[in-house]
Amino acid sequence: MAVGTVLVTGGTGYIGSFTTLALLDNGYDVVIVDSLLNSSKAALDRIELICGKRPTFYQVDITDEAGLDDVFSKHPDIDSVIHFAALKAVGESGEIPLEYYRVNVGGSITLLRSMAKHNVSNIVFSSSATVYGDATRIPGMIPIPENCPIGPTNTYGHTKVMIETVITDHIEAERRKAKKAGKPFEQWNGALLRYFNPCGAHPSGIMGEDPQGVPYNLLPLLGKVATGERDKLLVFGDDYASKDGTAIRDYIHVLDLASGHLAALNYLREKKPGVKAWNLGSGRGSTVFEMIKAFSKVVGRDLPYQVVDRRLGDVLDLTANPALANEELQWKTKLTLEDACADLWRWVENNPKGYRQDPPAELLEKLKASKAVKN
Amino acid sequence: MAVGTVLVTGGTGYIGSFTTLALLDNGYDVVIVDSLLNSSKAALDRIELICGKRPTFYQVDITDEAGLDDVFSKHPDIDSVIHFAALKAVGESGEIPLEYYRVNVGGSITLLRSMAKHNVSNIVFSSSATVYGDATRIPGMIPIPENCPIGPTNTYGHTKVMIETVITDHIEAERRKAKKAGKPFEQWNGALLRYFNPCGAHPSGIMGEDPQGVPYNLLPLLGKVATGERDKLLVFGDDYASKDGTAIRDYIHVLDLASGHLAALNYLREKKPGVKAWNLGSGRGSTVFEMIKAFSKVVGRDLPYQVVDRRLGDVLDLTANPALANEELQWKTKLTLEDACADLWRWVENNPKGYRQDPPAELLEKLKASKAVKN
Repeated sequence: MAVGTVLVTGGTGYIGSFTTLALLDNGYDVVIVDSLLNSSKAALDRIELICGKRPTFYQVDITDEAGLDDVFSKHPDIDSVIHFAALKAVGESGEIPLEYYRVNVGGSITLLRSMAKHNVSNIVFSSSATVYGDATRIPGMIPIPENCPIGPTNTYGHTKVMIETVITDHIEAERRKAKKAGKPFEQWNGALLRYFNPCGAHPSGIMGEDPQGVPYNLLPLLGKVATGERDKLLVFGDDYASKDGTAIRDYIHVLDLASGHLAALNYLREKKPGVKAWNLGSGRGSTVFEMIKAFSKVVGRDLPYQVVDRRLGDVLDLTANPALANEELQWKTKLTLEDACADLWRWVENNPKGYRQDPPAELLEKLKASKAVKN
Repeated sequence: MAVGTVLVTGGTGYIGSFTTLALLDNGYDVVIVDSLLNSSKAALDRIELICGKRPTFYQVDITDEAGLDDVFSKHPDIDSVIHFAALKAVGESGEIPLEYYRVNVGGSITLLRSMAKHNVSNIVFSSSATVYGDATRIPGMIPIPENCPIGPTNTYGHTKVMIETVITDHIEAERRKAKKAGKPFEQWNGALLRYFNPCGAHPSGIMGEDPQGVPYNLLPLLGKVATGERDKLLVFGDDYASKDGTAIRDYIHVLDLASGHLAALNYLREKKPGVKAWNLGSGRGSTVFEMIKAFSKVVGRDLPYQVVDRRLGDVLDLTANPALANEELQWKTKLTLEDACADLWRWVENNPKGYRQDPPAELLEKLKASKAVKN
């Protein structure tokens, strides 16, 4: 019997699909809702190839309350939600903010309403380190602890802060209401996972990030330079107050991030803490130039780049202090930047069309062999 | 010809109806949308009795995008929106936060989407001094200026902050988009009006606050004590660090508040400043005991009260620094606390059932006579 059944919104997306894999690997049943606006059902095939189990899938948008109600009604065994579904391009969020507020904030309100109707009371929310904004504005806040004052500098970050607030107010109100009525209240819990810079791919080489359109993040862009899809990498500013002038980020392997979600979910179900925020990061900051170097090393040649002006809203340093998650969730990152670079390159090199092509036969053979060894 | 046509959301509510009156009195045409969830169409009759003009009315909820689209389509002359429609009970917002987020935040997103579709680009938003939270936590912030750090202490206040953010991001994005396309961008403007404690009624005695359910604010509660509907006033705490131990608020007559909205609208239409926040307050703080005294004087007898414990989330002092609005909007409060008390008592004494009864004949006679004198 399953440990529990989890609804994963945005479960065919990058982090959602890896978290689904981690859940299935750890005895959970998974039901996915995803609009497929920025992801592909092929992720389900890859998940099944890797772990031998297939999540249940519904093409439902989180702004569609009737659609969500229908899924909860069909799966009364769902006891928790991990909520990834969102628009996530920082730049675009400044161009069409209303759409970001409608989908991210409005959609989360709709999801919580539907959850409440079906007595689903645990939620793990995919927040972001962008909620802190420029933490260097406050002395002593790098690496960033969870009690760093909130101060997002773009619409995407604002949506994450708003959703954290909505979840907090809702869960706390439900607890107060249950308490007042003399009913059990501990089942209402929320984890706000603020993650830093997710990167990497599955070591099998058959599962990774496959966004529609132009990628926004450093490593995927480097991947496209390595495959020749792009001429060069644009480096946004080399006049930051870092050792080499480029901006510092905390890169976290998507497999580590997925296990962080699993740890948070288990914590909610066991400790019933109410609402809590945790940073998911490695605690190690890397500059853009360091990343270019690390990835070039894996690819085996120097990758071309060009320094251009800083990008509006970018900040010098976003490095996590992950001590709270290390201690409370008994979770820490295990994989290195070098792992992330190697895994990403294996994914990119072998799947130039992402999920729009079948995975190479030799990778599937290797996967089968490694599973045979395990069993 | 009208100066312009304004859509007023929540226009049959307390502040909405007085602002509608001020708009009509100053040459604007007014179209109202209101759900009538917490107000009555009778407000339209009172407006017409007082100023001789009747606003166009539609019973439409701001969460209903098709309904809003329909209104904008029927009235292509609408060039600005004054947005009052919202759930507004602070206490209730802590009990059913999701509903507050859905209606206030979700509804505002819907309104802005519908406005954008119909090229309506000016919005005056009914924000609140609650966005500041406990301003006494920061030295030097009483009286409160607009640059006081935001820090709401309840869900109602959170919804106001979120809507301010959504409006700001949206207007600024539209300006950037228009600029980039070489199009005029100045027509996109927003006023965030943070008001303090609205009170009072129309001096005619036929128009005032008529909330459904139990009032939450001091003066309406004092009115109910004066009419005998309530035994006594509960005073929440007399151990605050004020001259008499009770909490300090900045009471602003609803007629002054309405003229503040008019001033802000005119400013947006003339100066096209982008998005700006203004405090609407008198700059004068009054304690609860001072208010009891002032209202008792108007009623002609001492009103009974009882001191009880402080109320969760209440703060010592919420007094505005209205210097920015005084200067930029060329607006300041003209009416006194004594005016507000006298007007409220005239309204309450003569309309014990609020809008659920016809206004007294003698007040209508007086109104007619005063209008005859004016003409």
